[in-house]
Parts: sequence; structure tokens; C-alpha cells
Amino acid sequence: MKTLIKNGKIITNSDSFEADILIENEQIVVIGKNLTPDIDTKIVDASGKYIFPGMVDEHTHIESPFGGTVTAPWQTESVAAAIGGTTTVVDFALQTKGESLMEGINRWKSRAEEQSAIDYGFHIAVTDLRKDTIDEIPKIVAEGVPTLKVFMAYKSDLMVDDQTLYQSLEAAKNVGALVLVHAENGAVIDLLQRKCLENGETAPYYHAVSRPIEVETEATARAIAIAEIVGAPLFIVHVSGEEPAQKIREAKAKGLPIYAETCPHYLFLTVDELKKPYFEGAKYVCSPPLREAKHQEALWNALQDGTLQAIGSDHCAFNFSGQKDLGREDFTKIPNGGNGIEHRFTLLYTQAVTTGKMSLNKLVDLLSTTPAKVNGLFPKKGTIAIGSDADLVLFDPNGKKTISYQTSHQGLDYDMYEGFELEGAISDVFLRGTQIVKGEKYVGKLGEGKFQKRTPYGLCYETINHVNKESQEV
Amino acid sequence: MKTLIKNGKIITNSDSFEADILIENEQIVVIGKNLTPDIDTKIVDASGKYIFPGMVDEHTHIESPFGGTVTAPWQTESVAAAIGGTTTVVDFALQTKGESLMEGINRWKSRAEEQSAIDYGFHIAVTDLRKDTIDEIPKIVAEGVPTLKVFMAYKSDLMVDDQTLYQSLEAAKNVGALVLVHAENGAVIDLLQRKCLENGETAPYYHAVSRPIEVETEATARAIAIAEIVGAPLFIVHVSGEEPAQKIREAKAKGLPIYAETCPHYLFLTVDELKKPYFEGAKYVCSPPLREAKHQEALWNALQDGTLQAIGSDHCAFNFSGQKDLGREDFTKIPNGGNGIEHRFTLLYTQAVTTGKMSLNKLVDLLSTTPAKVNGLFPKKGTIAIGSDADLVLFDPNGKKTISYQTSHQGLDYDMYEGFELEGAISDVFLRGTQIVKGEKYVGKLGEGKFQKRTPYGLCYETINHVNKESQEV
Amino acid sequence: MKTLIKNGKIITNSDSFEADILIENEQIVVIGKNLTPDIDTKIVDASGKYIFPGMVDEHTHIESPFGGTVTAPWQTESVAAAIGGTTTVVDFALQTKGESLMEGINRWKSRAEEQSAIDYGFHIAVTDLRKDTIDEIPKIVAEGVPTLKVFMAYKSDLMVDDQTLYQSLEAAKNVGALVLVHAENGAVIDLLQRKCLENGETAPYYHAVSRPIEVETEATARAIAIAEIVGAPLFIVHVSGEEPAQKIREAKAKGLPIYAETCPHYLFLTVDELKKPYFEGAKYVCSPPLREAKHQEALWNALQDGTLQAIGSDHCAFNFSGQKDLGREDFTKIPNGGNGIEHRFTLLYTQAVTTGKMSLNKLVDLLSTTPAKVNGLFPKKGTIAIGSDADLVLFDPNGKKTISYQTSHQGLDYDMYEGFELEGAISDVFLRGTQIVKGEKYVGKLGEGKFQKRTPYGLCYETINHVNKESQEV
Amino acid sequence: MKTLIKNGKIITNSDSFEADILIENEQIVVIGKNLTPDIDTKIVDASGKYIFPGMVDEHTHIESPFGGTVTAPWQTESVAAAIGGTTTVVDFALQTKGESLMEGINRWKSRAEEQSAIDYGFHIAVTDLRKDTIDEIPKIVAEGVPTLKVFMAYKSDLMVDDQTLYQSLEAAKNVGALVLVHAENGAVIDLLQRKCLENGETAPYYHAVSRPIEVETEATARAIAIAEIVGAPLFIVHVSGEEPAQKIREAKAKGLPIYAETCPHYLFLTVDELKKPYFEGAKYVCSPPLREAKHQEALWNALQDGTLQAIGSDHCAFNFSGQKDLGREDFTKIPNGGNGIEHRFTLLYTQAVTTGKMSLNKLVDLLSTTPAKVNGLFPKKGTIAIGSDADLVLFDPNGKKTISYQTSHQGLDYDMYEGFELEGAISDVFLRGTQIVKGEKYVGKLGEGKFQKRTPYGLCYETINHVNKESQEV
Repeated sequence: MKTLIKNGKIITNSDSFEADILIENEQIVVIGKNLTPDIDTKIVDASGKYIFPGMVDEHTHIESPFGGTVTAPWQTESVAAAIGGTTTVVDFALQTKGESLMEGINRWKSRAEEQSAIDYGFHIAVTDLRKDTIDEIPKIVAEGVPTLKVFMAYKSDLMVDDQTLYQSLEAAKNVGALVLVHAENGAVIDLLQRKCLENGETAPYYHAVSRPIEVETEATARAIAIAEIVGAPLFIVHVSGEEPAQKIREAKAKGLPIYAETCPHYLFLTVDELKKPYFEGAKYVCSPPLREAKHQEALWNALQDGTLQAIGSDHCAFNFSGQKDLGREDFTKIPNGGNGIEHRFTLLYTQAVTTGKMSLNKLVDLLSTTPAKVNGLFPKKGTIAIGSDADLVLFDPNGKKTISYQTSHQGLDYDMYEGFELEGAISDVFLRGTQIVKGEKYVGKLGEGKFQKRTPYGLCYETINHVNKESQEV
Repeated sequence: MKTLIKNGKIITNSDSFEADILIENEQIVVIGKNLTPDIDTKIVDASGKYIFPGMVDEHTHIESPFGGTVTAPWQTESVAAAIGGTTTVVDFALQTKGESLMEGINRWKSRAEEQSAIDYGFHIAVTDLRKDTIDEIPKIVAEGVPTLKVFMAYKSDLMVDDQTLYQSLEAAKNVGALVLVHAENGAVIDLLQRKCLENGETAPYYHAVSRPIEVETEATARAIAIAEIVGAPLFIVHVSGEEPAQKIREAKAKGLPIYAETCPHYLFLTVDELKKPYFEGAKYVCSPPLREAKHQEALWNALQDGTLQAIGSDHCAFNFSGQKDLGREDFTKIPNGGNGIEHRFTLLYTQAVTTGKMSLNKLVDLLSTTPAKVNGLFPKKGTIAIGSDADLVLFDPNGKKTISYQTSHQGLDYDMYEGFELEGAISDVFLRGTQIVKGEKYVGKLGEGKFQKRTPYGLCYETINHVNKESQEV
Repeated sequence: MKTLIKNGKIITNSDSFEADILIENEQIVVIGKNLTPDIDTKIVDASGKYIFPGMVDEHTHIESPFGGTVTAPWQTESVAAAIGGTTTVVDFALQTKGESLMEGINRWKSRAEEQSAIDYGFHIAVTDLRKDTIDEIPKIVAEGVPTLKVFMAYKSDLMVDDQTLYQSLEAAKNVGALVLVHAENGAVIDLLQRKCLENGETAPYYHAVSRPIEVETEATARAIAIAEIVGAPLFIVHVSGEEPAQKIREAKAKGLPIYAETCPHYLFLTVDELKKPYFEGAKYVCSPPLREAKHQEALWNALQDGTLQAIGSDHCAFNFSGQKDLGREDFTKIPNGGNGIEHRFTLLYTQAVTTGKMSLNKLVDLLSTTPAKVNGLFPKKGTIAIGSDADLVLFDPNGKKTISYQTSHQGLDYDMYEGFELEGAISDVFLRGTQIVKGEKYVGKLGEGKFQKRTPYGLCYETINHVNKESQEV
Repeated sequence: MKTLIKNGKIITNSDSFEADILIENEQIVVIGKNLTPDIDTKIVDASGKYIFPGMVDEHTHIESPFGGTVTAPWQTESVAAAIGGTTTVVDFALQTKGESLMEGINRWKSRAEEQSAIDYGFHIAVTDLRKDTIDEIPKIVAEGVPTLKVFMAYKSDLMVDDQTLYQSLEAAKNVGALVLVHAENGAVIDLLQRKCLENGETAPYYHAVSRPIEVETEATARAIAIAEIVGAPLFIVHVSGEEPAQKIREAKAKGLPIYAETCPHYLFLTVDELKKPYFEGAKYVCSPPLREAKHQEALWNALQDGTLQAIGSDHCAFNFSGQKDLGREDFTKIPNGGNGIEHRFTLLYTQAVTTGKMSLNKLVDLLSTTPAKVNGLFPKKGTIAIGSDADLVLFDPNGKKTISYQTSHQGLDYDMYEGFELEGAISDVFLRGTQIVKGEKYVGKLGEGKFQKRTPYGLCYETINHVNKESQEV
């Protein structure tokens, strides 16, 4: 069956124009003026609406264990994503010690296969880099998982040392895979946490005190230096402030293939949230922590000048009751993470586009096109072009809404953005040509989302050039 | 009449996909798989070819006076541009002292109207900023000329002082116009030139000696500082090396709306060319001068990280015989300028894409999409999208050619790139749906090119945001 | 006659130790433990006191015309300096248009000869650089005036263009002289002033609004760039904030012989003073203007890391009544300048040494040794060493005082530091062995101060090396 | 007994003047013109000579184990130091695992007590930071050892992790002690070494290949970041090139109390030495490795602008035969280190002063005064002032010599500077008033050198201010 979406205004990362879109066999096949439908073509009227490519969220943690508890599951979070216009996520799967990478991936995959409302892929977080794990990397890339994650934070469990970081980058580079890094110095944080606790500083705010921006800046610089020595590309996740962004800018200026994202909470919330009384600050405990307000302008500038190239949600949803409150007596026991999978797009539209901070095209680039490219999903995902998957979001600029956890679809008993006003509303979402959202209602079938075999970005034009340049200097 | 271009691979600044393009009434109306032609549709087979949007050259000097002589005319240069895949130029018109801006524009327009093979617009170079000239700026913007040029170099004639620069930026800002600046400190150059001549240093190489990169770096920083004070956007033309690029990078990092281009000769040629014997160095005399080889990597990095956003030709064609040789006894009398309008695209394709320095999409962005946007030509020009002008370039990646002035179409008795090998060949060029180049042959009609009324980029999303931010600091 | 100062603690820019000092024929001849006086030696007991070298103030404007009025004269200001521990000033003499440099110097000299309580030299401010003026530079250097001043500000009278700046640097370099520059872009300030006045913004605060820090940053960068091209050393006076200091830091990092000072008012006062009611803001009108508080930490850091090497008073004393109030209706008519010649040392001692910001030695370095060196007064001035002039300041760290114009010795009806508490008190001052201050009383004779023939610093080790390095790059 | 040194030219870090020096009880007691000797005063004629304070070498490794062998002993190296004008060294004592810090110090002390020709102190290198070791730090400071060393390199034995670095800085800060850091990323080096060996790259040159400057830059930035978080001062030893120096410059610009040295070999030798045939490259194997020539200018600039404040020898003498050749088959087995204790001063005089790179005063500052200050030896050492130890070096600027290991006094069978021409010659050296060198002959008694109880620099004015500033930002 064919579907024809008529009279919308198509917005890609570069272009804005009015045209009809014809969909057939899950793909976009024709874009044009006044297209004539066949007799059996389903017609969708998009008059007065923007049509965006489905959003790509390269940074989610769904049904993921952390500190003895687990985040919200696919059946709620993938639906929330869909309703928010995100049609593909790349979620973080975790290798556990002793396990192969594939085992970690498969554990995640089996959950998503049954429950996901949207398409998905996985990064695999390396926690135990044995000789056989290194040898496994080409295999997982061949299976469509060309992105690895390493943590420089979380000393007690996830943190890797510089040799593991180096070897991950090297193994990844050889097959064009990309390493994503959580850049905070876990060794120093561990000491600062201990000191806080020794001083009786147990409240949520001390989470931020124990992770000053210097630990992020340091680790960012270190990861870049090691990537430079290896000659490998690197993607730095959740950049939270000015100084780490500046390290990335300087690396790019030297011609290094360094990519980076920030997240909505660093753009819209500040460390003051952690001071909320009655332990409510715990809702805002994530890592890196929220920062002082002055960092927000630096992040907007870094998005504008291309230092940062994506805005992922880092969605990592723990309930306040029963999960966040594990840390009532000790902030180090608060599960780290907040929400963002559902309102990422509309929040950015409201705060960045309607305020003139960026164009619609730039927004599409940051939330869909570039994440799709860097993660090897492009051109199936991330654009509206002939042959691409018909993942489409229809958006009514006249909508209005106030965020509340009570009306959200995330499986969560609070919302970090509670009370934020939204401009515009997503009216329809198509996943590979099938409508899965209508109004604010999910109309698809769980399990409909498909695993996406992704291609290695490290073999793209720009990157390959850099990794082939051998440093001559001693 | 309709035209259907079948089976090509469409390359935009973001996407690459195979599809057919249907053209009607000068515009692209449908893009899709297996489009079926009407009975009267002309079919063009593009199998095995790339299809690019027509290139936009934002920096040309056609039929322009300089130092008592005049550059090559529209009838040759616009044809050379067309054959090289450029379907729109924005040429520099000069106000002469005492004259209104409109008089300068009209003088240029009348020449192009009769002779241009391609579409065109004009920047107006302000040389005499009187009260009535300031008042005229809104009027020329309304006439479709939203870009002004000021020279900080050429002390004896074109150079403006800081007050004129300030006032140009201010007047432009108020109507969303954009100021382009030639950033070299003309006062210091004048002294250095005199010193060279006093020392008997009259050969072409001393052109470079008298314009060290510090004069460009200084003027770049000064122009940015003044634009920052005014709160206006600024476009810096022909950035030639590392230090000026770094000043631009720092400005962008502060969130300033600064745009900049470099030119092919700074990427491919070095100051050593000026040492060629028998006065041949004169062929390479342009301003800013060619630099040492080390600057080239810095420029490539600045293109890659978005510091520089365009590569204009700065085509300014003087014959060696009869023009360049006016300076045989005195390098300051050599007319400044070189060629580039014809081979800009294929040269970049050869040196940047086939070597892996950049993707095809990035190349399209630098040579077509971004110049079109910044100069207010977008979306008519600069992209392949529904409703855009059907300015299309078909490119055969298997072509090969060696550059020689003897086979070039520029009206010039030499070529700066003589002997350079080219990969790929432009096979067909369409201007608003009409084929004007076939093989290497111009098949259009002179005068077919149209004046493009351009819109003010200074009123675009990103820029307007910046100019609305009032600096609070004293 | 000999004088023996016993039991004090000698403080130089590097050392602190207890010893006696024997003075003979105006000079220090012996320093040692338990020196035995001759029969006719005058003994001064310095127990419990610090002994500093006489302070050198390299930046004063005494009896100097500005905007139709004139600053306070030598008979008051040189006495105030003496009481404040300053035994040598280098005052700014002005060339007037048409005049030779020597005429300007001689006009200043004749006033000082009659009235100065302390030793003195002159910088000559070049306002009219004719061919014969350039030729005169070696001559004035031979006469002991090896420092020139050029203004990049004050468009209507003092401002020089870039060619004059270049040529001054070049002429100075050839004879080892040093150019001091007032770095603010006068052309832009002129426009900003006019705009303020057009908007009816006539109050003192608009003085600061019309001179944003960007005009200082820009001119600082420009002066450095031109000095770099010439290959000449440069001294930047009255650096007021973070960004200009950073430009100087970057220049030094490249190995350029750039020197710079800040002034007490930039360290202790902020732009908020200009908002004082009843026109009192006018008391704080100086150029560059006072800045926001955040710049102060940047200046302290720049003093600490050697970016700034001196703290001159920029003493330029106009009465509030009859002088400052010339600008009641128009801030551009307020004479620019404030006071500082008297309390410079004790103010810095109080605010920097007792607070732990710097050591006593560093203070001596900034206020005496380095100014003496850079201005060619060393080793006669600026240190306590054998053969140096016996210019000595005895300081009781237990003194206390509150600054008030009523008890100050400056010829001024207000004091910018009114109400500031001072720690420590100068008890005795010796000029070439003669006591001129006792308690807070001037006990010398006006006219006792001598003109100091100074030597060219541009020929010193560090500088000569830099100026001999010829830039190879084009 | 008294000694009177007559008619020399005294050179301190700031002053240069002619005077006599009277010595009594090991100290300088009088400096002055034409001092009259008592009857029993020994007279030394210094006419035509410079008199410098005894040089202080803050970076030596005497009789120190490394890789299964041991460096040359006190009986030769302290004599070589003396002949070269160095009267005090601060040598690196090593804690071995399981041992207390005091045990390490005492092991070193007992050797020096018997054999040292000159005065000495020790840094204690922390290799095993247990709880009781942290508690021991105040004790060793009280014993006169206020400087700790930590290694970020040498993974297999000396390297400490970030937590140890943090805790060392914190423990040191609390008692005003200073941490010295060897900044190279040992984890990455270990991998690069293994890769070289796997590739059969075993020659000395691969020592440099396996330690690219990025590992030094990274570790320098990391050490600074951790010191910033702790709020502690830090001293970075043997800075070898441009990028690490820039990190230090940026730290100082932020007001951080970071100090740093470079070494003669980084100023005078390049990595090309490691390519010498017949395994001779091994003579130049030290860490960080020698760098490319371009880094030398950057180091000179960093010395000039105060980024680097000392030039220590890092003297670590292994014979070629029997020691260096342990690594014939494997560069990782070559003992790391070279010589410099003997000719440090005259080499710098020749290459820096006579060439105009720096003044005599600056040289004294870098080789004597500042090392003495930072290491808590001042004012006993490092200056020529009343009450200071009479450690004096008489220097004849007319001397000439060629360096050769055959005429050197170091216990070494080669010299890194073999064949270097020296200008000037040390004629006499006094240690606390006793002449220990005459001509080039050592005339003292081994064991005459004394242990110097040093005071904590971390409690000095500048530092204490910084460490008291609590960072407010999260």
C-alpha cells in the first residue's frame, strides 16, 4: 500500500519547502509538487504542518541496571519516544564482567524485539576488555554494532583505565567503529565523594560538589589526547559546560575527528535544582551533574559553531519513589539519571527555534541528521530523501502544552521539566510508512520496531582521512 | 516543456541518493524513483553520473577596473563559469567616489544583462560613505542587493577608515544586510611597499613581502571587534592562512555571527610561485598574497571544523601580456588578481574529494549551498529541492583532464593552475531547466542569465538572534 | 657627609634581609651587618622598619593641558609623590602640532627644574610625526629621553594613525628607544560618543559606555601586530581588563618584547563609581574607563604571571570644581584623569601585601625595579645596591591612616580613594641621600629634584635579541 | 676568619654592580665599595670577574637506582657540580615499597654526608602512599624535606595513580609542602613500548617514538587539573616542549600556583641525537625524550615570559659501557638519563647570555635564585645578600673551553655535550666562605657539604593566597 502525505512543509537539515511525499514499501519514493495518488493510495493531509524526518536519539538507557536498580522498560519508554517524534534510538547495552560483548548486545536485543515501538540499535559498553573481547570487535561491527562505549567515571564498576581506553580506540579504529566516551575522572570523583560523606555532606547537592567541572574537563582532554595518539575518531557524550566544550573545539581546530553531544538538561536546567528541599534534588542527579547557569550560553555557542553536533537525551529513567530514594542517606546511592526521551524535540523547538536561537534546519540536524550519520544509520534514518525510510513527524506549530509527569508517557513518577510550557505539537508519527502516533496517542504495535544494522562511521570520508594521516612528530 | 533527468545520483550538501528529477517551468517539481515522463517530456539520461546543484561563486570580479586596467568581460568569464558548473555568481560592483551606490550597481548590471551566460547578483563595494549613501542602503537592499563590501586595504583608493567600516556595519545591520570585508591593514602595507621600493625590491615576490600575514590577522581582528561593538554580522572574504582563521574561530566561539571564505589558490598554491623567473611570478600576484605551505593544512582544518564556510574563486582575470606586465619595474603596479571561475569545482573535487579530505556533500555545501544561503539566494539556488531553480550540474566521475589556459574558456593568456590534473568532468549544465553546457561546449545564449534579487541574510534566524543580543558590558 | 641607616629590614625586588646602609655622595656605598659609623656620620635608626628603594612612577601627567584646562602643578604633585614614597617620576611631555619634540620636552623640563621635589624624566608624546620629527628621535634619545608616547585614542587631537604608529616604532627601534602606547580605538569611540550625545546620554557614566573594553582590546592587538611587523619593543600603558591583558600574554608567549602596566584604579575601583549621583561620577572619568569588578581578578592574575610588569599611577589631577565640571552637560567635556601619585605604594601594600596577594618583593618589583629598568633609570633608581642612588623609603608596618583629600598633599579637591583605610605608614624618604620626608611632612626644597638622563631599554639584552630576529615568514 | 673578595662585579637575579664582599662565619656580612680588610682578613682579587651566587640545581639523581643499575656517586658528581659552580643540589631520594618516607631520605642522607662536596637537600619520591605515609608527611617537612615527587610515568614501578597524586597534593598542601611531578602518561607509554617491541623496533630512537609529546601534554594537563581541584601548588619538572609549556601558561593565567622547569638538554639537543649509529643514540635516552628542534624556541619563549622558572640539570649519569648498553637489544632496558650537573651554568651562559637570549640576571634567576626560593633554600642560598651563605662563584668571561667527557669531572664515560664550545670559565667557588674550587681544580674536602633543612614554599605569600581561595563553582 502507498501513502501520500500532501501539502506539508518539509524540513530537512538544510532545506525547507512545500511538497507532497509518496511512501511505498516503507520508503520515501517520490517528493514533489501536486503528486497524484493512485486509487488505493492512502492520503494524509499535512496542510499547515511541518514534516520532519523521524528524530534519532543516540543516547538512551532503557531497562538498564544501575546501582542495584533498573531503568524504565521498552514498553513505556519506546512509546514515549514515539509520541515525542523519535523513531529510532541507539540504546546503551552493557557488557558485564566475564561476558562477551555479543552476550550484552543480545540481552538488550531480546528485550527490545518484544517491546519496542520504534526502531533501535545498540552501543555496547565495554567494561571488561580481554584479549578475546578485542578480537570480538570486528564481529560485532559485522553484526551492525559499530559503536563502543567506555566510561572514565564510576570507579567502583564501569570505569576503565587509560590502557583499556587506548586499546578500545585502536581496536575500533581498525574496523571503522566509533568509541563513545563518558568523560569524567572517576578516580578523583571517588575521593571527593568520600570526603563529602566523611564531612556528613550526604544531600543530593553534594553529588554536584563531588563532580566539579574540572574532572570532566580533565577527562575530556585525556580522551582526546589518547584518541590523537591512536589516530582514532572519538565521540564525547553529554558535554555539560564551557571548559570541556573548549577542549573539543581546540581538538577540531587541529583537524582531529572528534564529535560530541550535549543534552537538553544541560541547556535548560542548572545545578540549583539539586538544592530543592525534601530530597527533590535527587530527581536531578545525573552525571555529569547540572552546572551553573553561565555554562548554558557556552553550550549554545558550541552548538552554533559546530563544536557540539548533537543533542541526545541521555534518558535514564528512575522513579523518585523506590529508586531515587535509595540515596536518601547518601547521595552516592542515588541512581544517576533523568528523563528526556519524550519531550526532547518539542522542548528544543520551543526554547531554541521560537526564541530565534537556531533555525528549524539546524534543529533537525542536531536531533536527527547528524546523530543518524555519526551512528551509521544514515541515509535510512535522519533525512527526508528518496530511498530513505519513511520515518516522518508531522508537527503543528500552533499546538501548546505544559509538561507534566501525569500526562507524560514515560514510565516515571516525576518529570525534570515539570511545568515547562511547550510551543507546537506533534500530530502524527510514521515509522517506515506506518502511522504509529495520532494526536498524542500511540496507535502502533509494541515489537514493531526493528533492530537496525548500522554501518561504521569511522570509515566515512572525513574520518578515514584523519586516521590515515600518520603523525610524524616524536 | 518538461525535462526529466533519469537515473543520476543526486548530491546535496547533506544527502546522496539515486532518483529522477522532473523539471517544469524552470524549477524542480518532482524528485523520485522511476518517474514516468509525459509524452512531451524531454529525457536526459544521467546514469553513472552525479547530479549537483549549480555552483554559486560569491566572489568574482568581472569586467572590473583595477589600477588603470580592467578584468576580463562577462562574455568570456560567465561562459567559463558555466562550463565549470557555476550557474550563479555574485560579482563585486564598485561605487566610484561621488557616485551613488545604485549607479555602481547599475553600471555592472547593464553589462551583465547583455552578456551573462549565467544568473548573477552584485555586492556593492562602498568607497565613499556619505550621509546620503547611508540613507541609500535600505533602498539597494530593497532592490535585491543585500551585501556591501568594504576594503581595509588599498590605501590609495579603495581603503575605508574604521568609522566608515563601523557605519557601514551599522547601516547594514538595520536592514539585515551583510558586510563583506577585505581584511588587510592598508596603511601598514603602504609603508612596507614604499620600503621595498626604496630598497630596490621591485620583483613580484615583494608583493608578498609587503603584505605579511600579520597585516591580515590584524585587520581581521579589527573588523571582528568593530562588528562585535556594532552587533552586526560580518563576512570575511579570502582568508589566506592560519592566524586570521584562528581569529574567526575565536569569534564564533563567542557566539558572534561571523562568516568567512577562503579561495582555491590559498589551498593549492604557495608563495613560492611568486619567485618564478622571467616575471612569471606576476601571474600569482593577488591580495592577500599566496602564503607558505604550512597554512594550507590550517585552512583545510578550518573548512572542516566550520570556521570557514565557503570557497569563492576571487576570480579577477588580468592577462599577463598587457596587464600584469604593467608592473615589470614595480610590483605595486601589477594588477592584483588571478583566475579560478572555471575550474573551482573540479579542482576541489580532485584535490579534496578523491583524496578523502572531504565528502561530496561537504563540497556542495562549501561551493553552492552555504554561499547561496549567506548571500540570500537560497532556496532558489544552492540545493536540489522541490521548488528550487533547476540549476543542475551532471558530473562524470570517470573524466580526466589537464588544466591549460589554451583549452580554458576564461579570457586569459595564462592559468594559475596550468598543468594541474583534474579527475572527473562536467558533462551537462542546466540553468533554470535549460541546458547551457553539453560536454565542454557552451550551448546557451549570452544574456540568458538573469539578475537575482537577493534577500537579506542578516534577518535569518541565527543572525537576528545575535544582533538582538545587546552587549551589557562596559 | 655620610649617613648610616641602621637596623632596618631591606626589601628589594628579590631579597629581604636586615642590614645597615651607608650613604655617601648621594649613593649607597656599603650594606652590611653592624656597620661602624665615622665620627661625622649621621645616624638614622630604622629599627622595626622596612627599607624600600624609592618608588618610580612611570606614568604621571603633571601640569599638563587637556581639553582646555591643565592638571595640578609640580609644586604640589611632586611633594605628594615624595610623601608617598615616590622619588622619581617619568612624566608625559606633549609635543604640540608644528613643534619639535625637543621643544615639548624643554617646556616640561623648565617647569620641573624650578619646582620638583623629586627626580624626574619625560616621555615625549608624539602628535605630529613629520620627517624632521623622525630625524629628531636619535637626538632626544641622546639627550636622555628614550621613550616616546603615541595615542591611538582622542581622535580630535592626540590620536595618530597606523602609519605614524609604525614609523614611531621604527624610528624608536633604530636607537633602542621604547614606544608607549595608549591603546583605545579613537575612531570608534568618537562614533560611540556622538551616538550617546544624540541619545541625550550626557552623564559621566556614558563615558564608560562609549569606551567599551572591545575598543581597548582591538587597539592593543593592533599595536602589538604593528610592533611585531616592525620588530620593535612596545610598552602598553594602563591596561584595564581581562581581554587586553590576554592579548599581551599571547604576544609574550610568541616571544615578542611587549611590556605593560596597569594602574591602581583598575585594581581597586569599578565602573559603578561613574554612576554616583550629583555628577560625582565625573571624579572617576579616566581613559580607559573603570571596568566591571570581574576584570580585577584578571588583572591580579596578569600581574602575578608577569603579563603586566608595572603599576603606574596615571596620575592626572583635575579638580572637581572648575575642571571636572566643564562636562556637566556633556561627558565628553569632562577632563579625563584621576589621582594616584601619593598613595600608590601604601594602597598596594594594604590591598595586596597584607591580604597575601603578593610578596613585598613583588610589590617593589612592580612599583620600583621594573619601571626603573624599562625606563632606563636602572640601576641608579629602582634598587638598593652598591652604587645606586640613595633613594630610600622607610616604612613602618604598624602605621594606619584613612585616605582623605583633606589630608592629602595632592593639589586636588577630591580623592578617588576617599575613605580607603591604609595599613602601614611611610616615616622617612631620602632622595639621593638627603632626607626629604619626615613623618608625613615634606622637609626638602622644591627644585631639588633632578632631570634624569635615561638610557634606551630597547638596547637591553632581552629586547635586542628579539628585534634582531628577522621574521622570515611572508 | 674573614675573607674579602675585592673588585668583582656582583650579579644577582636583578642587580649588577661592582663591589667588595666581606665574608665572616660562612656568611656574607658586608657588601660595599672599597672595603678595608682587617689584618687577618684573607683577600681574594676578583678584578675583571663576575661574582654569582652559588648555583642551585633542584633536579639531580645521584647514586640512584634505576632499572637494575645505579647512577654515578656523590664523590664524583658533587665535585663535578662544584667545579661547575653549583653549590647546592636537591637530589631525588626514593621511597621503596613498604618503606617509610624517612627511611628513603635517610638512605640518601647517609651517602651524601660522607661524600658530598657541596650542600644538599632531598625531595622524597613517593611510590607507596599508605595511610601511615600520609601521616608521615608533616614529620618529614619538619625534618626539612618540604618537597615530594610523584611519577605519572614508569608504569612498572614508580607510577602512581590519580588518587595517589590527589592525596599527595592534599597532604602536602596542608603543611605547605610542594609536590613535584614527572608528567608523562605511563599507561599509554607502556602500550606504545610494547607495540614498538612487537614490531621489532628496538633501537634507541624508538624510546622517543614510544613517548610522543602528547603523553607529556596530557599528563601535564591532568596534574594541573588535579592540583586545581585540591587547591594545591605544583611544580612540573623537565618540561620538554611547546604544548606542555602552553598548558602551564594557561594555568598561570588562571591564577593557579603552578611552577615549572626545563632542562639544558631540551634547549640544546634534539631527537635526532637518538638516531646516532652504533647504539650511540642510547647516550641521549632520557624521559621525557629529546624533541624536534621547533620546540626549542617555544622553550626559550616560555623561559622569557615566566612560564618556566628554572633550568634544572636532571643529571642522571649512567655509563655507556655497562649501563646504557643493557638496552642494546631492547630500548626499554636502556637506563633513562643523561648528564648536566657540571656544565649547566657555563653552557647556558654561552648559549643564552652571549647570544643575547637573556641577561646575566635572568640566568642567575633561573639557575640559582628561583630554584632556591621554590625549594625553601632562600635566602641562605640563591642570592648575594647580607646574611646569606657565602656560596659564591667567580667567573672569568674571557675563558674558553671545549666540553669533553675526558676532561669532565662527572663519573661518566661520555658526555651529551661532547664538543660543545664554552665561553667563559669558572675560576673560584666558595661554599659557605670556604674555597672549594680553584681554577678547574677541586680544593675542598668530601663530606664538607651539609644537609640543608628547607622551609615549605607552599606557605609563601603567593602560594598561600591561592590555596586559600576556595573554588566556588560546581
